[in-house]
Amino acid sequence: MAENDNTVFVGKKGTMAYVLAVVTQINQGAREVTVKARGKAISRAVDVAEIVRNKFDTNLLVSGIGISTEEVSTEDGTPLKVSAIEITLRK
Amino acid sequence: MAENDNTVFVGKKGTMAYVLAVVTQINQGAREVTVKARGKAISRAVDVAEIVRNKFDTNLLVSGIGISTEEVSTEDGTPLKVSAIEITLRK
Repeated sequence: MAENDNTVFVGKKGTMAYVLAVVTQINQGAREVTVKARGKAISRAVDVAEIVRNKFDTNLLVSGIGISTEEVSTEDGTPLKVSAIEITLRK
Repeated sequence: MAENDNTVFVGKKGTMAYVLAVVTQINQGAREVTVKARGKAISRAVDVAEIVRNKFDTNLLVSGIGISTEEVSTEDGTPLKVSAIEITLRK
């Protein structure tokens, strides 16, 4: 997953930390922000997109959602497949 | 959320239980199956869609993914907003 300026990668922090990250990018002029997550954080990524749209910027549209499978390495080097999501929000 | 014959609602069971439910519907002739989930089960719904597509029926396409916010009632009647996902798989 390439991470550019307009991407917020959702992990284990609280949901509002990522909501703030998305809102900040929009306020700095981004027309489009992509919210990405893997594994259990996928639910949180959906929360982030929904909270941003419903509470902070109701002009944002979900312009695309994609799901995929990515291969990551565990600590002992075993390959592990995890699901991933990308939600693109656009003005 | 209306639940018709072609809908699999993903909850707290193991992922493979829902994978089996989707595969069964396809094998019974369904051309389209919608996988739905709310809250923390959203990650599992993505796993279900990805496992079905990658391991069981590689002819299936993700024809649509939607996210939304639903209001549910907790045990004491307090309204609570939860995120939801719908993933439609089509032959």
